[in-house]
Amino acid sequence: MFPWRRKSLLFARVLLFLKNRKTVARRRNAHMLKYPDAKVISLGIGDTTEPIPEVITSAMSKARLLFRAEALSTLEGYSGYGNEQGEKPLRTAITSTFYGDLGIEEDDIFVSDGAKCDISRLQMVFGANVTMAVQDPSYPAYVDSSVIMGQTGQFQKDFEKYGKIEYMRCTPENGFFPDLSKVTRTDIIFFCSPNNPTGSAATREQLTRLVQFAKDNGSIIVFDSAYAMYMSDDNPRSIFEIPGAKEVAMETSSFSKYAGFTGVRLGWTVVPKQLLYSDGFPVAKDFNRVICTSFNGASNICQAGGLACLSPEGLKAMSEVIGFYKENTNIIMDTFNSLGFSVYGGKNAPYVWVHFPGQSSWDVFSEILEKTHVVTTPGSGFGPAGEGFVRVSAFGHRENVLEACRRFKQLYK
Amino acid sequence: MFPWRRKSLLFARVLLFLKNRKTVARRRNAHMLKYPDAKVISLGIGDTTEPIPEVITSAMSKARLLFRAEALSTLEGYSGYGNEQGEKPLRTAITSTFYGDLGIEEDDIFVSDGAKCDISRLQMVFGANVTMAVQDPSYPAYVDSSVIMGQTGQFQKDFEKYGKIEYMRCTPENGFFPDLSKVTRTDIIFFCSPNNPTGSAATREQLTRLVQFAKDNGSIIVFDSAYAMYMSDDNPRSIFEIPGAKEVAMETSSFSKYAGFTGVRLGWTVVPKQLLYSDGFPVAKDFNRVICTSFNGASNICQAGGLACLSPEGLKAMSEVIGFYKENTNIIMDTFNSLGFSVYGGKNAPYVWVHFPGQSSWDVFSEILEKTHVVTTPGSGFGPAGEGFVRVSAFGHRENVLEACRRFKQLYK
Repeated sequence: MFPWRRKSLLFARVLLFLKNRKTVARRRNAHMLKYPDAKVISLGIGDTTEPIPEVITSAMSKARLLFRAEALSTLEGYSGYGNEQGEKPLRTAITSTFYGDLGIEEDDIFVSDGAKCDISRLQMVFGANVTMAVQDPSYPAYVDSSVIMGQTGQFQKDFEKYGKIEYMRCTPENGFFPDLSKVTRTDIIFFCSPNNPTGSAATREQLTRLVQFAKDNGSIIVFDSAYAMYMSDDNPRSIFEIPGAKEVAMETSSFSKYAGFTGVRLGWTVVPKQLLYSDGFPVAKDFNRVICTSFNGASNICQAGGLACLSPEGLKAMSEVIGFYKENTNIIMDTFNSLGFSVYGGKNAPYVWVHFPGQSSWDVFSEILEKTHVVTTPGSGFGPAGEGFVRVSAFGHRENVLEACRRFKQLYK
Repeated sequence: MFPWRRKSLLFARVLLFLKNRKTVARRRNAHMLKYPDAKVISLGIGDTTEPIPEVITSAMSKARLLFRAEALSTLEGYSGYGNEQGEKPLRTAITSTFYGDLGIEEDDIFVSDGAKCDISRLQMVFGANVTMAVQDPSYPAYVDSSVIMGQTGQFQKDFEKYGKIEYMRCTPENGFFPDLSKVTRTDIIFFCSPNNPTGSAATREQLTRLVQFAKDNGSIIVFDSAYAMYMSDDNPRSIFEIPGAKEVAMETSSFSKYAGFTGVRLGWTVVPKQLLYSDGFPVAKDFNRVICTSFNGASNICQAGGLACLSPEGLKAMSEVIGFYKENTNIIMDTFNSLGFSVYGGKNAPYVWVHFPGQSSWDVFSEILEKTHVVTTPGSGFGPAGEGFVRVSAFGHRENVLEACRRFKQLYK
């Protein structure tokens, strides 16, 4: 029909996130058809459920802030295109709130519409010819964006792995921190701490080793700290707490899980000016070029919300929301602990990582859904080392979490 | 220092948009230092200046719509992650408003945070190994995103062109529509009508030829209709008005210039399910994969604003804003016409394209800035065929446009 037109290139590529999400959705829908009267509870995808604190939404709708929806209807309050890198007051507030004494400066901060989007923009900076390491298991966007950029080679169905991706195994045996002596050198290392889905957070000592590993190999770490505010233990909340990290790491983060901004869309990426390519050119300058070409800045209304998040009232309100989800986490952990399961995560992240040794994640997922009408996430969807686990998310209304836990107790009593 | 780390790849690539914007900004700043008391007027970058109609901002801040900032503070009104493709009511409204009888369906619409962002996501679908044609001159994001993806080959400084880009010359001689008999076949054809910067709009007959050309060559047209609502003449507002276009074209558009959403960020791309690769796979499915991997949907607050834009009151308010800018356009056109210049565009777009035959765009830009303190945009920044032109934007407060025109009359009387 169009002999000259190229074929689909992406078609043959397996995107883990899509594949798994579609399967979960299909199973859930089939379940609801089968049990039309069942009250299905979702502790599956990591989506927040509690309202955004009023102090933050009012900033977006009517408060006296730089950028706000209503002010945009006045000549004085109107603003058009902003800086692609974000508005100065927000960049300043992010710097002082999260990187106060770490030597990160305001112009190292790039405000975005979320960490997932920034990960893809980083992949555009890296291009198709880099090698990539990820924690196994981890948030699927790292591998999937890598697949789309054409970095990953063929999918090896037998191993559920891409040939050119280095999977850094993170299991209970190694305390969910990879054995770096067995990790092959790559150009880029994605590292998420506290980790999604395992909920584990790397210690200062572990991150110091990771930074040294990257330094020795000339690798660049992309550190994902989207859950840092859920940390209870005294682990680093930012990779930049590790001396020397500015020369080997960038960091991406998000308001999504702090302020319920999953639908509002606001995040940021830190690219320190000390992070250089081997030819001495700053990575931040390349990222800035991609940002200015492929992005036009986060919505000014959402940025007003972000600024309100970082006011004293906003920080207090966010910490209350986070505290609420952490109570959910405790309820879920206590439940599975009381049932004799090996339970990981939870303490530093809104995710509980439950071990079902010797079983397939999908079988466990199916059994839980069939018998309790609760949707979880099969661990194998996050990488082959997630096999035998399910992730239970603490994002839920309290009564749903309590009801789900009652049902878990009934199932596994 | 990091012998194993790769060099910067993007560094050597010339991004037209950044290069020109930086130069304009530098010149403007130098001018303001030189003339600290001058009232500098910017008719340079295409950024809207008039407030967003209250009917639209109130939807975003307090009206009773599906998604709104304040409702997000209530349990009933809260929503987290939306569909990456956009909320159903907005997709429905876009379909019925812009593509009512053109056979485009709601699931062909992908809501985004703006056309510029979607262009880059389309480039991720296309990958590095496609060939590309652009109107010369045109909106620089097409070429720049192409450069970042590595499609373009070397920059040829003598011609101000990239080796592997097909530049389709659009000048007064050909009525700003390319001579297709001289255009080399490419995989992708970017086509913007009404065009930025020339302000010219292709006729039905011309677009019919373009669609046939694409069909004959197995090319895919990316049609940019971001200025369609500025059309006065009876030209197509959408490529899908041309029979058969759904098999060869997609279309990207935006609320930016209709509702003053340049800072709010909202747009959409139409990928008809009839648009197939040579292996029969729908392009829309590939685009959907990129959207779901690299994007998490446009902000729910902004989508509420978009929905309000497409209500009867919103449409009326938008058409008033557009009418205001069109009056500005007339004032600017009348001014240059009365001074004896050859003036193009204006009638179907908020841009006036003024010819200074034999002169360099940058020299004209400099002279206008030096003598009138008005910032314009040098035509050569949009492509080599823009040499000898400047673009005067109609986005400005009325008194600024009038004052700028008074100064033009003084300069060129």
